[in-house]
Order: sequence, then C-alpha cells, then structure tokens
Amino acid sequence: MATRVRLIDSTSTTAALDEVFSDATLLGAMVRFETALARAEAEHRVIPQDAGRTIAATLTANGLDPAALTAGARRSGTIVIPLVDALAEQVRRVDASAATFVHWGATSQDVADTALVLCLVEARRVLDTDHGRVTAALERLSHEHASTMMLARTLLQPAAPTTFGLKAAGWFGAVSRSDLQLRASFELASVLQFGGAAGTLAALRDDGPKVAATLARELALPLPEAPWHSHRDRLAALVCACGVYVGSLGKVARDISLLMQYEIGEAAERGGGSSSMPHKRNPSGCAIVLAAANRLPGLVSSFLSAMLQEHERGVGGWHAEAAIISDAVKTTGSALAALADVIEGLTVDADRMLANLRETKGTVYAERAMTLLAPALGKKRASEIVAEALRRSAASGKPFQDAIAENSEVSGVVGAALTTLGDPRAYLGAAEYFRTRLLTAGVASTDD
Amino acid sequence: MATRVRLIDSTSTTAALDEVFSDATLLGAMVRFETALARAEAEHRVIPQDAGRTIAATLTANGLDPAALTAGARRSGTIVIPLVDALAEQVRRVDASAATFVHWGATSQDVADTALVLCLVEARRVLDTDHGRVTAALERLSHEHASTMMLARTLLQPAAPTTFGLKAAGWFGAVSRSDLQLRASFELASVLQFGGAAGTLAALRDDGPKVAATLARELALPLPEAPWHSHRDRLAALVCACGVYVGSLGKVARDISLLMQYEIGEAAERGGGSSSMPHKRNPSGCAIVLAAANRLPGLVSSFLSAMLQEHERGVGGWHAEAAIISDAVKTTGSALAALADVIEGLTVDADRMLANLRETKGTVYAERAMTLLAPALGKKRASEIVAEALRRSAASGKPFQDAIAENSEVSGVVGAALTTLGDPRAYLGAAEYFRTRLLTAGVASTDD
Amino acid sequence: MATRVRLIDSTSTTAALDEVFSDATLLGAMVRFETALARAEAEHRVIPQDAGRTIAATLTANGLDPAALTAGARRSGTIVIPLVDALAEQVRRVDASAATFVHWGATSQDVADTALVLCLVEARRVLDTDHGRVTAALERLSHEHASTMMLARTLLQPAAPTTFGLKAAGWFGAVSRSDLQLRASFELASVLQFGGAAGTLAALRDDGPKVAATLARELALPLPEAPWHSHRDRLAALVCACGVYVGSLGKVARDISLLMQYEIGEAAERGGGSSSMPHKRNPSGCAIVLAAANRLPGLVSSFLSAMLQEHERGVGGWHAEAAIISDAVKTTGSALAALADVIEGLTVDADRMLANLRETKGTVYAERAMTLLAPALGKKRASEIVAEALRRSAASGKPFQDAIAENSEVSGVVGAALTTLGDPRAYLGAAEYFRTRLLTAGVASTDD
Amino acid sequence: MATRVRLIDSTSTTAALDEVFSDATLLGAMVRFETALARAEAEHRVIPQDAGRTIAATLTANGLDPAALTAGARRSGTIVIPLVDALAEQVRRVDASAATFVHWGATSQDVADTALVLCLVEARRVLDTDHGRVTAALERLSHEHASTMMLARTLLQPAAPTTFGLKAAGWFGAVSRSDLQLRASFELASVLQFGGAAGTLAALRDDGPKVAATLARELALPLPEAPWHSHRDRLAALVCACGVYVGSLGKVARDISLLMQYEIGEAAERGGGSSSMPHKRNPSGCAIVLAAANRLPGLVSSFLSAMLQEHERGVGGWHAEAAIISDAVKTTGSALAALADVIEGLTVDADRMLANLRETKGTVYAERAMTLLAPALGKKRASEIVAEALRRSAASGKPFQDAIAENSEVSGVVGAALTTLGDPRAYLGAAEYFRTRLLTAGVASTDD
Repeated sequence: MATRVRLIDSTSTTAALDEVFSDATLLGAMVRFETALARAEAEHRVIPQDAGRTIAATLTANGLDPAALTAGARRSGTIVIPLVDALAEQVRRVDASAATFVHWGATSQDVADTALVLCLVEARRVLDTDHGRVTAALERLSHEHASTMMLARTLLQPAAPTTFGLKAAGWFGAVSRSDLQLRASFELASVLQFGGAAGTLAALRDDGPKVAATLARELALPLPEAPWHSHRDRLAALVCACGVYVGSLGKVARDISLLMQYEIGEAAERGGGSSSMPHKRNPSGCAIVLAAANRLPGLVSSFLSAMLQEHERGVGGWHAEAAIISDAVKTTGSALAALADVIEGLTVDADRMLANLRETKGTVYAERAMTLLAPALGKKRASEIVAEALRRSAASGKPFQDAIAENSEVSGVVGAALTTLGDPRAYLGAAEYFRTRLLTAGVASTDD
Repeated sequence: MATRVRLIDSTSTTAALDEVFSDATLLGAMVRFETALARAEAEHRVIPQDAGRTIAATLTANGLDPAALTAGARRSGTIVIPLVDALAEQVRRVDASAATFVHWGATSQDVADTALVLCLVEARRVLDTDHGRVTAALERLSHEHASTMMLARTLLQPAAPTTFGLKAAGWFGAVSRSDLQLRASFELASVLQFGGAAGTLAALRDDGPKVAATLARELALPLPEAPWHSHRDRLAALVCACGVYVGSLGKVARDISLLMQYEIGEAAERGGGSSSMPHKRNPSGCAIVLAAANRLPGLVSSFLSAMLQEHERGVGGWHAEAAIISDAVKTTGSALAALADVIEGLTVDADRMLANLRETKGTVYAERAMTLLAPALGKKRASEIVAEALRRSAASGKPFQDAIAENSEVSGVVGAALTTLGDPRAYLGAAEYFRTRLLTAGVASTDD
Repeated sequence: MATRVRLIDSTSTTAALDEVFSDATLLGAMVRFETALARAEAEHRVIPQDAGRTIAATLTANGLDPAALTAGARRSGTIVIPLVDALAEQVRRVDASAATFVHWGATSQDVADTALVLCLVEARRVLDTDHGRVTAALERLSHEHASTMMLARTLLQPAAPTTFGLKAAGWFGAVSRSDLQLRASFELASVLQFGGAAGTLAALRDDGPKVAATLARELALPLPEAPWHSHRDRLAALVCACGVYVGSLGKVARDISLLMQYEIGEAAERGGGSSSMPHKRNPSGCAIVLAAANRLPGLVSSFLSAMLQEHERGVGGWHAEAAIISDAVKTTGSALAALADVIEGLTVDADRMLANLRETKGTVYAERAMTLLAPALGKKRASEIVAEALRRSAASGKPFQDAIAENSEVSGVVGAALTTLGDPRAYLGAAEYFRTRLLTAGVASTDD
Repeated sequence: MATRVRLIDSTSTTAALDEVFSDATLLGAMVRFETALARAEAEHRVIPQDAGRTIAATLTANGLDPAALTAGARRSGTIVIPLVDALAEQVRRVDASAATFVHWGATSQDVADTALVLCLVEARRVLDTDHGRVTAALERLSHEHASTMMLARTLLQPAAPTTFGLKAAGWFGAVSRSDLQLRASFELASVLQFGGAAGTLAALRDDGPKVAATLARELALPLPEAPWHSHRDRLAALVCACGVYVGSLGKVARDISLLMQYEIGEAAERGGGSSSMPHKRNPSGCAIVLAAANRLPGLVSSFLSAMLQEHERGVGGWHAEAAIISDAVKTTGSALAALADVIEGLTVDADRMLANLRETKGTVYAERAMTLLAPALGKKRASEIVAEALRRSAASGKPFQDAIAENSEVSGVVGAALTTLGDPRAYLGAAEYFRTRLLTAGVASTDD
C-alpha cells in the first residue's frame, strides 16, 4: 500500500501530506477507530470483554485489499461497508463469536468521519512545521530590512516610499492572522464522530454517552456535545480557513513574483530553470503557491455547497467531502512548503530597491510637496505648482524635487524641508511603528 | 437617494439590508469618515482647528449626485475620487482655505474600506434580530417536541426512530455554532482602515498613529495593529463565515422542504401559493433560504480569489470586493429572515410522524433485532433470521416485529424485549441526552 | 508505474479514467510528443535524419523514475524539465550527438499541454461508452412508460398529472443537449500545442509552421491557427461543459433519490446496503452522482479564475490547471458511470405512481376545475367554488372531484367533463407530444 | 420606476446593462409575455377573442407597484404571483369577464423564464457593441505593431523576442473565440418557456403546442422541443460562456496592467488618478476588468450548483438563478465596456519595448545561441559555452552576443549568424505568420 505522489498532482501536494491521506493512513485510522470502539465497549460491558480484547488484538490494516474496497465503495457509496466486512472476517478467523461485535453499534459514517478527523490531526502537524519556517523567515527578513527603502506600489504604479521591512511584516501579519484562524478551525473540527445509525446511539441502549466518552479518550479526540452526521459546519469552517490562509500565502507569492520581474529585480527566489532557455530563472516556487491559490477558492465553494445534507445523513453531500477536504489540505500544504522555500531562499536587492525609487525622478514625493505647500498656498495653488513641476520634470528629466525647488513661491513657503523633499527617509511616516506592531501582534497571536 | 429593493433581487435581499448598502448609507458612512478624520486631525493639530471645525460642520451626504459619482467611479475605479472632490467643493463654498484639509493624509481606500466596515457593523445588527428569532423558535420547537417520535432518515431512507426534538436541536446547534463564528468574524473585521497613500501615514509625519487612534475612537471602531490595504484576510474570513452560516440555514430548509412533501407531511411552513394551481401550498420560505445557499458558495469563492492583491494596493482584486461582500451579507440576511418566518410558523404533525414511522412496518427495528440476537446467536445466524423476517414481513404486510416473533429461536433468546421491539420509545438511545446538550452548548456559546 | 484508484477518491473517479490520467498514460503521451517531434523535425531536415530516427527509436516511458520527476517538478514547476533531461539521457546512452536534438525547439508547455490534450482524447472515448448507456436506458424507459401516469411535482408538492415517459424524456433531453456541448468542447480543445519558448517557434527559423503541421498529423490532432500557451479559453470551455453536463446528470440523480424515498417509492435504483441497518437499501449510485455534482462547480470556478495567465506563459495559473482538469474529467466520468448503473437498473413502480396520484384526493385537478368553470362563471366565482370544494374534500376525505360535483352550479356548467375530472388521462395535455419531440431532438442532435 | 446604478455596484455594471435588468424592463417583458399569450390563445380560440383583445389592449407595466411585488415575492418565492393578480385587476377594471383569461394556462415560471430570456436578448445587443469596439481596436493595434519588437515574457521573466502585433493578435484570437461561444450560447438559451403547471400545457387541452408556436412567434423567440422548467442546461451554458469570455478579457487586462508598470512602461491605458497622489496614473480600466474576472468564476459556480432542480420545478435552485444570471451578464458588460475604453485609448511605446529588450543584454538570445552551436558541438559543449558567456556578460555588463563572440570555438561554428545573434528581427520565427492566422481565424469565426 505504499503511496507516491502522482505526476499530475506533483505541484499540488507534498509527499508528507500525500501520505496523510494515503490508503495506508486512512485504513490505519479506520482500524484505530474500530479497535478503540471495541475497547471502549468492552470497558463498559456493552460487548463481552473477551470479544473486545480479541478484536483489539486482531484488527489490522495489513492485508486489506484496496482494490476490493474501492469496488465496494462504488456499490455502497463508502469504503466502510466492505471494510467492516473485511475486518469482521479477520476476527472471525480467530474467534467467530468475537466477530459479531466488530463495529458494534456504530454506523459507516462514524468510522469514515472519525478517520478523516484523525488524518486531519496528522495533517495539522505537517502544516505546522512549514508554517513555522515561513513566519520565522519573514520575521528575519523584516528585521534585516527594517530600514531598506523601496517603492510602495498601488495599482502596480509607484506610490510613495516604504520599507521592505514593513512589506515583509505585512506579509507576516496576514499569514499569522490566517494561521490563527486555521489553527482554531482545526481544533474545533477535530472531534469524535459517534452516533450510530440514527445519531442516537440507540444500539448501545443507555450506555451510548459513556462509550462515546471513552472512545474519544482512546482516540485522544475531544467529545462534542452530540454526533454531527449531517451538520458539517466545523469541517466547512476548516476548509474555509484553508482558503483564507492560502489567500494570504498567495498574496506573498504574487508580490514576490512581481518583485522578481527582470525590469524590477528587487527580490528573487532561488527559482527554477527552463527546458528551452538557458538564461531563465523562474519564480517556480511562487508558481506553485499561486497555483494553490487558484485552486482553493473552488474547493471551498464545493465544500460549502455540499453542506445541505438531508436529514440524519445526506445523499451526495457527504459523499463529496472526503475528496474535497483532502485536496484542500494537500493543496494548502503544497503552497506552504513552496512558500517556505521561497522565503528562506529569498534574495533581496536593497540597492535595486533604492535605484528603482530614485528612477521615479522624485514624482513619488508629489504628495509630500502637496502637504508642504497646501497649508500655506491652498490646495488649488499647490496643485498647480506641483502639476507644473511634474510636467517640467517629465520634459527635462530633472528630478521633481529640483524642478519644484526652482519655483520661488515654493522655497518661500517650504524652506528647509525642500532639502529633504527627495529623501525617502524623510517620508516613511509610521512605517517602522507599524512594522513593529505587526510582528508583535503576529507573535502574540501565535502564542495564544 | 431613497432606495428600494429591485425586483430581480427580491428574493435575495431584505429591505433592511438593502438599506444598509444603499447609496444613502454608503455615502453617509464616507462622510462620517471624512468628518471624523478632520476632527481627529484638528485635535492633534495636524490641520488647523478652524479648518477641522468647518469641515466637520459642513460635510454632508445630502445633495451629492450619485450618477456623477458612478460615472467618476468608472473612470477612476472607485467612487471616492469624485466624492472627495465633491466634498471639498462643499467646504470651499464656505471656506476655501478649510477645503484644502478635506481628506488630509488619507487615501481613497481608507475611506472606502472604513465606510464598508461601518456598513458591516450596521448589517450585523440587522442579522442579530433575525438570528435571535430563528434560535428562539428552534429551541421552543425542540422543547415542545422532546418526545415526539419520528423517523431518522439516512440517504433519504428510513433508518431508525429519533425525536423531532433532537432534530430541531441539531439544527439549533449548527446554526448557533455557525453564528458564533460569524459573530467573531464580524468583530475581527470591524476595524478602522487608515494608512494613507503607501500605508505609512507619511503625510501625517509623526502624528499618524495618534490621529489613527483618535479617528478609530470617533468612529467607534477598534484600531488594528497596522493598515491592511492589501491584506484582506479579515474580510475574507467574514465572507467565509457567511458561507458556513448560510450552509447551516440551508440544511434546515432542505430538511423542512423534504418533511413538507405531500407524501411525508410531517412539518409545513406557512408557505405560498401558485399562480396556476389553487390547491398548492409551497415551501416558498425554504425556497428563499435554499436559493441563498446556492449563491453563497460562489460568492465566497470569488472573494477568496480576489485576495491576491498586488503590493500596497491591488489592481482588480480590491475593486471586486464591495459588490461581493454586500451581496454575501444581503443574501445571508435574506435567508435568515426567510428561515425565521419558516420556523416561527412551522406546523409539526406529530401524528403523521408516528404514522410514517409505523408505516415502515417495523423494518427500522431490524438493527435493534440484530443487537438483541447477535450476542446469543452470532452475527451470521442473527443476520439470517432478520433477513428472513424482513422477507416475510415484506411479503405478508405483517410488521417485522411480528414476523420475527414467530421464529421460536428468537423468542428463546430475546424474551421480554420482544414485546417492545416495535416500540420506538424503546429505541431512542441517547436522543434526549444529546438534545439537551445541543441546546445547552448552543446557548452557552451565544452567551460568550 | 501501475496505478490504482486511491481509497479517498474511490467515489470520485473510475478505474478507467484514473488510468487516463495515470503516470503511465501521462508519460506515454509526453514520450509520444517528443518522438513525433523528432520525426517531424527530421522530415523537414530541421534536425539530422539520423538523429530523428535514433530519438524516435529510443525514447520510452519505461524506466522513468516518477519520484524523481515529482521532486524535479516541485523545483521547476513542471515535470517536463526533469523529464526532458531523462529522455535526453536515454538517447545519449545510444548516440550522444542525437541526444542534442531531443525536445529541439520545443518548450516545456508544448509537451505538457499536448500530452494533456492526448489524455483528454482518450478520456472522451471512456466517457462516450457510459454516455451511450445512459441515453439508451433513458430512451428505453421513456418508451416503456409513455403512458405511465404519475404526479408532476413542483417545489416538492403535487402539481398535476404527467407521465413517467415525459419525465424520462426530459432527463434524456437535458443529458443529450449537455453532451452535445461537451462533445463540441472536447473537439475544439483537442488541438496541438507547439510554439516554442516565446510562442513563435523561432528556434525552428522558417520551418516552424511546416514542422507544426507534420507534428499535428503525427499525433492525429488538429493544428490550431497559432500556439495558445496563455490563452486557455478552449480548455476552460471544456471544463465548463463538464460542469453543465454533470449538472444535468445530477438533476436526474436528485429526482431519482427523491422518487426512491420510502414514502414515495415510485422508482428505485439497485442501490447499496448499510453497515448497521439490515433493512436499508440506499440510493448509493445517486449519491455518487450527486457528490460529483457538488464538486464540479468549484472545479469550474477554479479553472476559470486560472485563466488570467500573464504574457506568454503564466505564473501559477497554468500550474493550477492539470490537477483541476483531470479532477473535473474523472469526477464527470464517475458520475456518468454511476448514473449508467442507476438508470440501467432502475425499477419503476407504475402502480405506486398511480396510487400516489390518487392519494392527493383529486386536489391536483383543481386547476382543471378552474379552466372548466371560469369561462362560464368568471374567475372569482370559480375560485370560490374550487376553494370550497377543496375545503370540503380536506374535511371529509372525499375526493375533490366528488366534492365539487356536489355543487349544482358546477354540474350545470361542466356537464360531461365532470365525469373525467378525476381521471389523470384526461389532463395530460401535450405530455406525449413533448415526450416524442425530446427523444427525437436528442437523437438528432447526437447524430450531428 | 427609473433606474440608476447603485454606488456599490458602480464598477460592476454599466448603465445600459443595469437598465436591461431594471424593474421597468423586467416588468415590461412580463407584460409582453402575458399580452402575447392572450393574443395567441385568442387566435386559437382557447380564450374568447374579445377577452384576448381586451387583455392585449389593457395590460401595462405602468402603475405597477414594485414595492408590493417585492413583498409578494418574499411570500411566494416569485414576483409573478402578485404581478398576475395586479394585471388581472387592470383588466377587471375594464371588463371583469376578460380578466378571467389573464395568464390562462400559464404558470409563474413561464412568465419569469421567458421575461428573463427577453432581457437576455436585449443584453446581447448591448454586449455586441462593445465587443465590436474591442476586436476592432485590437485588430488595428495588431496591424500597426506588426513589426514592433518586444520581449515575450514567461513566468514574468524575459523569454525571447516577439512582436506586439502578435501579442495583440493573441488577445484578439482568445476574445473572438470566446465570443463565438458566448454568441452561440445566447442563441441556444434564447427560447420560449411555456409549459403550464406541470410542463404539459394540460390547461390548454389539445391546443398547447399550437398556442406555444404562436406565442413564440409573437415574442420573436424560437420554440424549443419542450418546456424546460427544471432543465437549465441552456442558461448554465450561457453563464459559463460569460465566464470564459470574461476570462479572456481579464487576461488582456492582466497583461496591460503589467506592461503599464512604471518600470516596464511599454503600454498604458488612459487611466485614472489618485485621491492623494498627484503624480499617479492608474490602470483603472484594467482594474474594472480584473474585478469582473474575479467575480465571474464564483457566479458560474453558483449557477451550476443550482442546476439540480427537483422534479418539475425546483425549490431554491430556480429561485437562485435570476440574481446570478443578471449579475453575470452585468459584470461581463462592465468588463467589456472598460476594456473597450482601455484598448481604444491604449498608448504603445515601441521605443521602450525595444529598449527593454536590449536591457536584457542579449541573454534572451541564449536559446538561439544553443540552436546555432549544439548541432556542431553537441548539446553538452554548447551548454557550457553559453553558460560561460552568460556569466561573463553578467559580470562585465557586456552583451551576451559580444561575450559569446569572443569564444573562438563559437565563431568557427556559427560564422555569419554571429552578426545577427543580438538582432531580435532575426529571431521572430513564425510571429508574423501566426499573427495573420489569428486575425483571419477570428474574423472568419465572427462572420459565421
């Protein structure tokens, strides 16, 4: 049952997460459920203690035939039905009377949902590692470049100076906040499912709640207030949180792929090459992140539209979920691993950042000129002066700050500030203040 | 600027929520921002105190020309640019020098985002009322029908008995949990946006953070750690939470529309009529809820895919948001109002529920028969007996419990339990226990 | 490289379609591209004829190491780069000088896109078989039940009589029309991709178009007017057509799952059992179809949002596609195979259909009563009479047609028609006419 | 009933398309349906000829109360029910007996669907105009810049030379192909809906098909093979085609917004300004297109998931459609109008294109160098030489073509070709060939 990432999925999963949703892991989790159930039921004497011991000692994912389970799943809508038959058969070979008590009182969905939850617990661990790499690397970048000046760009046009430190802190903030939600949603969703055929645990008579509590303890999962067979809000929130999280990762990748453009050249990931062009260095890591960010919204939408599950167990909605949620988590992990590589290997060209800032010939200080002139001259006159200086700067190639300084009306008003008009350091406002707050808020949040 | 729900939107919004995103409300919120900004800047002497007073006293949403703003928005991508011109003109007519300080240091997105947030705060209030109606009515229904027995149905087939009280409590639980998330996301998202052109508040020199704090206080909005121009995770989480919430509402409506089928007839909303068929009573309220549940997932997906906003202000992603988020909130409110009417007016036919349960001729007790027989006879023999009794029951029309009682092997094993085999009350398991826990958990959660 | 459906995907693909997108098939298609390219280039003397022969004779998908390709793909964003290295190495072992000409003038995307297209051609063949099963079975059902009367239901409430033959013909019509679009979109999308690094085939000097024509012929693919590296409209239309097609399949499954409800019991698929409830017969086939119908819309949405591919090759958009399109096609095929089983095995209970129609106690003839009475008595009076008869029918349990016949005003007006008022055959209108047209239109369309 | 674009929708619709889905247009279309129905039924003596004349002469959209209709729609799920009452009342005031025959034999959905179709016919006319503007302007740009050389860029990195003429032709091709599909889907979807309560036209006895044919003729709509109440494949295909079309528009806007970056500066739309920065020129038109491209995929997804409409009329699915389809068409039109302005006003800087190409210092000719060297020296040796020249070029700032020419091994092999190695005109391959084919294919297609 060894697993291997398929080529067609090679940029939309990682080996570690592919393993989390592999046949081996999934069957292992299902066997864990049935084993723990037998133990819990034996503990509360719902089934004979001997039977419980035998079942717990016998059940194994080894030797199960995935092809047969798949075929069975297409007949019955879930792999659990053929699986339970196969597991009962394992016990029957050892002790026919114990086999009667395999899966006692449970329904297919109890096994399938709880196994999925157990996979998700594992997935969260995998994600955690790469999330830590991303935020640590972003924090480091932000500190290193606290005073690296660069262009802020709005609508892809030069706006005003900022620092790369603030930019990295902004990425850190969004990724950290999104992870906080993701983490919370993993916790809320990681609960036992155990309700039996109708969600009442009727087959356990009065012992349902006790068995459920023990089963939850055995599986190290919290016990929810009730079974949630057709109430999928917790899993839906988890898939949504993946969507938001990947959106935040994608924004970082979008920015880096833009900064890495040859004509901008302010930052670069290690990247990959081309099959035809020897000179190429591609933002391949960003491409993987952006691919994930393209896929997640549709997965979220599919999951949400599957929420309308009929009565005590839906027809179709539930059956759509496993593939969606495993795709969503794998794609999230793929984006995260790729971004971790991108950020850890990011080259930042502070000189080029400054050069690009200067290349705007001071036009990005036009707003500052307005704030210096308008109080004294009024907005209308200030606008005229600035517009005229922008025109002269464009025509002559002379920096805006020099062009505007030639206007005698300006020097009278602005005085000493004129000398710093073209200095980005003089127009960073609260950049450092916000940078620090973003890093602090992010860290604090993650500590919760 | 009076608003009125458009016919084509008549089932996808409510009058109250349509008002929340109307021209009047939106312009009002934008004027509130500019007014509060002038006050805050005057307080910190960033602009002259006279100018602050004049601006605050003069700005008004009255007399603005929405058609001109719309046309301007198509030129510049946002209504804020023509709006700020119009507002400055209002002040200029009173005091030309004060007009200079309208919108001082702010950028278009500061106004647009904060105004949107102010609308959302208002929207939450509207939603709250109807949410309260839904949960109160569900709680009441659950209590009234704590012992109303009915069929649990899985994959739309009869499964085993349950109570309508538990069913209603399940709805209550999902809607309450989803609201808890929605409420939290509204709170996280309802923060000030104020960063100026580059997100550094550079135009305010060193006073940016102070002005931001005062502005937040004036608008009764929390101050986030930094501006969030191109980091949209908070709003994305809010739209997602609408998606999950409406999914939970939609599940209730799906169930009710199914229970209301003529052939089932266990519950009915007041409903609407038909233009051609005098005898019809339609689940029109459920139709509105289900329509909303069809629309939300796509809106969520659009919002998430718009998250990849470039650098310090995106090109297109940001511009997509306002229409999406207002549609998402209006559609949510439409579903909620419709469901409140449905639940408050729900007729429950307990007799029909019991009759439908009986109509299954006891086959829904086959699982129970298994749990009684298998410990003594083994699963294999028990299965044979049950299958044979099911066959005889189907052939003869005789209830399953009677058919199986005829088997002498059975009576020997089961004894007294046979007399209650066909009694749903004897096979409710933990239904009441789960019902109580769901109502309690839901209430507790909402109290947080 | 043997493939096997994964358990987590067991209800969202079929073995045949899983094979179409397997490592083996995909690598095979890529090798076919490189082989045909070498042949075409040798034919036009773009590369030495010896080299062409050697390459064509040497390249093989055997022995390639998928794990290495996957790892390489995560570095470079595509499996083609490590693959071309491995293929060149195969040739180098035979003839180092020929190895120079492997992949000559092509770019990674040429290989990847054309290989995907070759897989799609194969997929279409697989889909065709099951589509034929579905339409043949629907046509047969429609003919068999041309005069099987049943309730038409609107908003899940009884409306008026119809025939099951018309219902099946409606399904047939929608599935056939959707397939017509799907078929057309497969044809439009199944074209060669060959443009080289910049989409100009510059590495082939003036021979690009000739080589492209020969390459297309070798691969039995139409030659488009130009390479389409970052123009994905054809594939997008294909994924959309899958979405519409599965929507049409899903509507059939939704209807059948509703007809199969125990309380309605008018039709049933063979279905599957339950792991806990011996008596259950579940619409498992419908569940698989409905699961697919839940997933497709999100996949369509993801593909569409990936269309904005930058310049001559996108960063991220393109990289998202392969997983989306293979999921979309596999899920489509899964739905189709499941529905073919459902329809071929469908049991129709004509007696129950008639019984359910009668169970409405004639209220479904209220519209007909209106059309008989209103011309003579006016709509207002007719409405009063009908409403009163409906009330009396509900109170007494007497059929509506008997209740209304007791009104002397009615008998005077309606006369003989009264005797057929409760006869569904007298109120089928153009059911048979529409049924015939639907079947004919569908067949004609498919013949195009 | 005058309409006006709402501020919150100002960048997601146009005035013309807002009008198409306004209350006035929608009610006008519904009144057209009822009028034409009365005429058709009178013609076939299904209703009295006098009544038909009176109805046709009396019905009017004037004076209808939209607020009352909206309120009614929330009760009954559609505005048709209160509307038909209001229309019957109009006739009643003139001739009570004629009022009986208003809406005779029709069902609400007949009116609502056909009115929607009539709006769509109008919408297509509006879209046509702007589509013509876009393609004409693209064709002109492509011809003007047939030999304007520029960088092809892959993964946002310099790849090899191309022409702006080919780039514009590529845009033209995708937009034209997408429009061909959109046009076809509008035609397929623009058909009459008329089936009565159960889709059998039973209320018209044997005259249904005749009346339907006349009604279709009166409304200038094709008559489909049968009513399509719960079969929504035609409309779904239309919404999908909007999605693909807007994807193609969005790709153009994405490219232009990238070309307009200050650091690239190769093309610019007229654009808009900033509320804070006097120097800014923003790609505001592209922003509107990209916003639309963000929204459409979600709308498509919502429409597709609403396709599973139950039995003869769905509960919720149908009710979701009107808002989705009108949003989709309005957003499409908004994108199209914005892109028409962008393309018509596009400034292309051919000098900057050439300068940016040169700025790569010849590295984009590395592939060409390989194709010159490898045949003689083998791929391995050629790679080493190219890599070494790339290194020396990077270190010295000397163009790649000069660096490689210094290698005596190279000059021996390449000879005269060396002199053109750095000339983009020598490496355009089939650019002009593909350009011409794209323009021709697009034009031909549109003529169909």
